[in-house]
Amino acid sequence: METLEAYLHQQQQRVEKALDQWLPALDAYPPGLMDAMRYSVFAGGKRLRPTMMLAAAESVGGDSEPVLPAACALECIHTYSMIHDDLPAMDDDDYRRGKPTNHVIYGEAMAILAGDALLTHAFEILSSLQLAEQFSAEVLLQVSRCLSNAAGSTGMIGGQVVDIISEGQQVDLPVVEYIHRHKTAALIEASTTAGGLLGGGNPEEVEALRTFGHQVGWAFQITDDILDVEGNAETLGKAVGRDAELDKATYPAVLGLEASRQRAQELMQQGIEVLSPFGDRAEHLRQIAVYIVSRDI
Amino acid sequence: METLEAYLHQQQQRVEKALDQWLPALDAYPPGLMDAMRYSVFAGGKRLRPTMMLAAAESVGGDSEPVLPAACALECIHTYSMIHDDLPAMDDDDYRRGKPTNHVIYGEAMAILAGDALLTHAFEILSSLQLAEQFSAEVLLQVSRCLSNAAGSTGMIGGQVVDIISEGQQVDLPVVEYIHRHKTAALIEASTTAGGLLGGGNPEEVEALRTFGHQVGWAFQITDDILDVEGNAETLGKAVGRDAELDKATYPAVLGLEASRQRAQELMQQGIEVLSPFGDRAEHLRQIAVYIVSRDI
Repeated sequence: METLEAYLHQQQQRVEKALDQWLPALDAYPPGLMDAMRYSVFAGGKRLRPTMMLAAAESVGGDSEPVLPAACALECIHTYSMIHDDLPAMDDDDYRRGKPTNHVIYGEAMAILAGDALLTHAFEILSSLQLAEQFSAEVLLQVSRCLSNAAGSTGMIGGQVVDIISEGQQVDLPVVEYIHRHKTAALIEASTTAGGLLGGGNPEEVEALRTFGHQVGWAFQITDDILDVEGNAETLGKAVGRDAELDKATYPAVLGLEASRQRAQELMQQGIEVLSPFGDRAEHLRQIAVYIVSRDI
Repeated sequence: METLEAYLHQQQQRVEKALDQWLPALDAYPPGLMDAMRYSVFAGGKRLRPTMMLAAAESVGGDSEPVLPAACALECIHTYSMIHDDLPAMDDDDYRRGKPTNHVIYGEAMAILAGDALLTHAFEILSSLQLAEQFSAEVLLQVSRCLSNAAGSTGMIGGQVVDIISEGQQVDLPVVEYIHRHKTAALIEASTTAGGLLGGGNPEEVEALRTFGHQVGWAFQITDDILDVEGNAETLGKAVGRDAELDKATYPAVLGLEASRQRAQELMQQGIEVLSPFGDRAEHLRQIAVYIVSRDI
């Protein structure tokens, strides 16, 4: 098997090629909007969520090629959430992945609309005629349900709301856990769940992939919080210490760094355990899980 | 037949009851978000778009009762677009329908997130298990395609972008028409198209309902522009003269009031003509079309 690094790079390129095909063309009308949408989608990123969707489809014996458009839909949702999170009224971040954020380049109005357009585009992709040729309407509807629930008011947006209203508040572990499980884990859980559905997994397999995605997604956010404390701004391509600056509810702030590291490891192990019935086909998912808690970027 | 006024009032109440059922409960977690979502959804409004969806379903001989959730999804999209349009970075409006706008009450961050949540919720409704019990997955996927395309970068958001970048510019008729057809007509067209699909209309009927919705939706925006010039602020529940203040690209600004009125009438007539094969079943749609260009609110 190739190294994980080579695999991730290969999948990243595959996803980016698909994104280029599945986003509105740069010269489409109206001017500015398509630029703004594409700017943030192509502002870098490891494409971990789409890669996990593809790997999940393969883990149940499916072909990942027809899953690419749905992986792009997921990346559209992820990108929209970052554009809106970075807005002055929200986290007010000027840089992400070493580049100016969307509103810094295109202005607030366009950044809001580009985010709205990316979120909508996800559902345009999932309901497109091209996908309907590859998958049954039932499966596509299940995937739409999975992604919209993960992204909605009781999913990612719910987590973001609690994140924002908890700034500067004395919060306890359950609140931090709510934030992590909703703001971040929900969408990663949706990646692996949708991958399982589109790969043709049976209900038990899809359920295992859901649990895996949730635990690993949670571990991902804890690791993000840790990196915000002890990461390298240059490597990360964004300011560190922003959580402390905004007095955010984080794992390290509540539990300390060492306990946070242990918690991320535990969650990662729990995720890997549920994949034992999958055998070798889930090897990429396992490697990604290990990578997620050990990364420095 | 009851008067149009009584019919519209009855449908408005029916839609509002359904919205109450289909929106997240007010006491759901997280606090604030559900309030903010519900505040704007229940801040009044004639519910014309959902009513047109229900009337379109009936015009092809369908039962409108099972169409109510999809009508709520459409109203969620419409409401989200108003919340985001009113933001300080966009049109910066403090009042709508006589009430303070979302960000005035809940702050900008929550208003952005409540809008995002309502847009997402529309697709949660359309892919929900409850709807899947009433309609085939194929039809629901078609409706999802119809609504997402109408709301997306080449639909409503595209129109909104051109509206914003045209402020203070010298614009010609094609630009104003692009704005109207995308910012407003697209979603009204989606209402009648989706109603036709969910009501079980054949492709010709659905196509006729699409044309009807587009022409009448366009006439709706021209009428809105006219009301912004000569309407009564108290009756409208919002400031008038805002278009001129923001130097917006409008029909009256380009063509003058009289020619604008004529254009709205023509479009309304064109819409009504395509409904002739529908006979009496389309009577409500015809009445709504006439109402749209003659309203003073």
